[in-house]
Amino acid sequence: MAVTLKEVAERAGVSRSAVSRTFTDGASVSGKMRRKVEKAARDLGYSPNALASSLTTGRTKLIGLVSNNFHNPIFLEVFDLFTRALQDRGLRPLLVNLTDETDPANSVRMLRQYSVDGVVVASSTLPPGFSKSFRDAGVPVVHSFGRHTSNPQVHVVGIDNVECGRMAARTLIARGYKNVAFMGGPQDATSTQDRLRGFVSEMETRPDIQVSYTFATAYSFEAGRKEMSKLIASGPAQAYFCGDDVLSIGALSAVEESGLNVPDDIGIIGLNDMEMARWENIDLTTIRQPIQQIVNSSIELVVAMLDEPDRYPEARLFPCSIVERGTLREFPVSQLETKTG
Amino acid sequence: MAVTLKEVAERAGVSRSAVSRTFTDGASVSGKMRRKVEKAARDLGYSPNALASSLTTGRTKLIGLVSNNFHNPIFLEVFDLFTRALQDRGLRPLLVNLTDETDPANSVRMLRQYSVDGVVVASSTLPPGFSKSFRDAGVPVVHSFGRHTSNPQVHVVGIDNVECGRMAARTLIARGYKNVAFMGGPQDATSTQDRLRGFVSEMETRPDIQVSYTFATAYSFEAGRKEMSKLIASGPAQAYFCGDDVLSIGALSAVEESGLNVPDDIGIIGLNDMEMARWENIDLTTIRQPIQQIVNSSIELVVAMLDEPDRYPEARLFPCSIVERGTLREFPVSQLETKTG
Repeated sequence: MAVTLKEVAERAGVSRSAVSRTFTDGASVSGKMRRKVEKAARDLGYSPNALASSLTTGRTKLIGLVSNNFHNPIFLEVFDLFTRALQDRGLRPLLVNLTDETDPANSVRMLRQYSVDGVVVASSTLPPGFSKSFRDAGVPVVHSFGRHTSNPQVHVVGIDNVECGRMAARTLIARGYKNVAFMGGPQDATSTQDRLRGFVSEMETRPDIQVSYTFATAYSFEAGRKEMSKLIASGPAQAYFCGDDVLSIGALSAVEESGLNVPDDIGIIGLNDMEMARWENIDLTTIRQPIQQIVNSSIELVVAMLDEPDRYPEARLFPCSIVERGTLREFPVSQLETKTG
Repeated sequence: MAVTLKEVAERAGVSRSAVSRTFTDGASVSGKMRRKVEKAARDLGYSPNALASSLTTGRTKLIGLVSNNFHNPIFLEVFDLFTRALQDRGLRPLLVNLTDETDPANSVRMLRQYSVDGVVVASSTLPPGFSKSFRDAGVPVVHSFGRHTSNPQVHVVGIDNVECGRMAARTLIARGYKNVAFMGGPQDATSTQDRLRGFVSEMETRPDIQVSYTFATAYSFEAGRKEMSKLIASGPAQAYFCGDDVLSIGALSAVEESGLNVPDDIGIIGLNDMEMARWENIDLTTIRQPIQQIVNSSIELVVAMLDEPDRYPEARLFPCSIVERGTLREFPVSQLETKTG
């Protein structure tokens, strides 16, 4: 039933080797030859079997894409970009949903069963040890949106979350807020810890500004809304750096419901700049994380590791930028107008 | 380097056949034996190779998951449910992002290369012919969220979109609206066509109600917002059945920006009941599509086809229900209060 390489060669009137080269990445074949072979393959419905050929090449062209937050809308954009970028390179994503499963051993075992060529862990909440388990098992791995350390053992592609915390702090300082707070994601998420650290350290230069922080239980709308409702009940700060955009949108919802106004009563700045942040009924001021660049670079790196499995671990960090929209007031108010807490 | 089955058998103190049976779905092995073998496998880091074993079983346990709308937040929920449900059954999703590629031949060729056991096409916009291409290529296929026809050639799991259109119409009639409209998704999407058909046919029973319809260019926030802005500029209807929730949220944004009020000036009812519809700052009245049931049933069906590839095609349709929130007025206004168009 299956069409063979020999039949394709006969139909195209070329050698079997020419057909083989046409379907082997990186092999030399003229454009004219390629077109002939591809037409014959199309006509006959020929598909070179990736799995069978993996037995000789040692490559399955499958890349495991591991994530653990399917409730944060940013991940739909991340999946879109990853699947497109992998497909453009003739690679295919095998999607792994960790849900509540965070024992890396299970994911490692599962992905080894499929002989994936490499793994991209796409998560800002998993600890470095998670991706290291893949490395220890000999699987090329890149941790996208992960924490970089001074002693990296795994390739990390992402942003400098400490610097993002500082950037948020500088923005709130410039707007003249005198009572500010960080409303983070889960306390054990590395992104939350790092953003808090940068925020607090920058604020240390300004002892006249009152600073506090709390944590939401997840990077989700509900968690952000619940946490902000509590904060409003106990007397809110003037402005919040929220751990990410979906938390910010939950917080916006709580402020709206309380009858207070954004940005007049409470200012909010998020992080990510996901599609929804620019929806006109959300209009969130935020810190833009260059997701497209992070995704492309992660894939470049995991592909490079296929030829160089012991590649020296590197951190690739991309700069973030402030996106001004409607959730922070525009001008600093004078000291006199400011309530002191 | 790789741990062998023999080593696992030795460590567990059992026969090689017992190890093999433990890792073969459906093979008989006692609970005690299974625990012994699994412990030894864990201790040694043994992973049965799914691809190698596929050469003998003929099964890769890979299911292609094909979709074409990574800009509609409902799909993050769909991916979450699909990946969980597949993982629970020891199956793995190979994600295919059609983006602008809608030639089924390319997807068929690609997924055949990976010898996927079956394919789930998850899309409410692709025509029946798309999934039929997989069937014609001998690949078990289920079209989730697809259109059912009286002469089905592919298994379809989803909802009766014509009935949903009727349900929306009955709801608007009950609220006393006298000038209503359907703002659909793309005109060539089967879901849009069917929802329109049901809406219009139900409205035919009420010649006193003015009915119109338009189409947005995509199931996306931006498309919904743009279309509703145009409608407001040219004189809007009293209430809209919007093609789905993300279109509704775009429409809500346009109404808000125009200075009009929902539900007082314009009523909106969506379709899907995605997570965001219940966000308190959206609070969308909508028609609930039972996504969890559709996903589970789709997977059951594609799994059943592995043993019965020529299974007679069936349509599995799940009932929808109205979810009352804040975007339709609560009571019918009397004829006197109603402006006549």
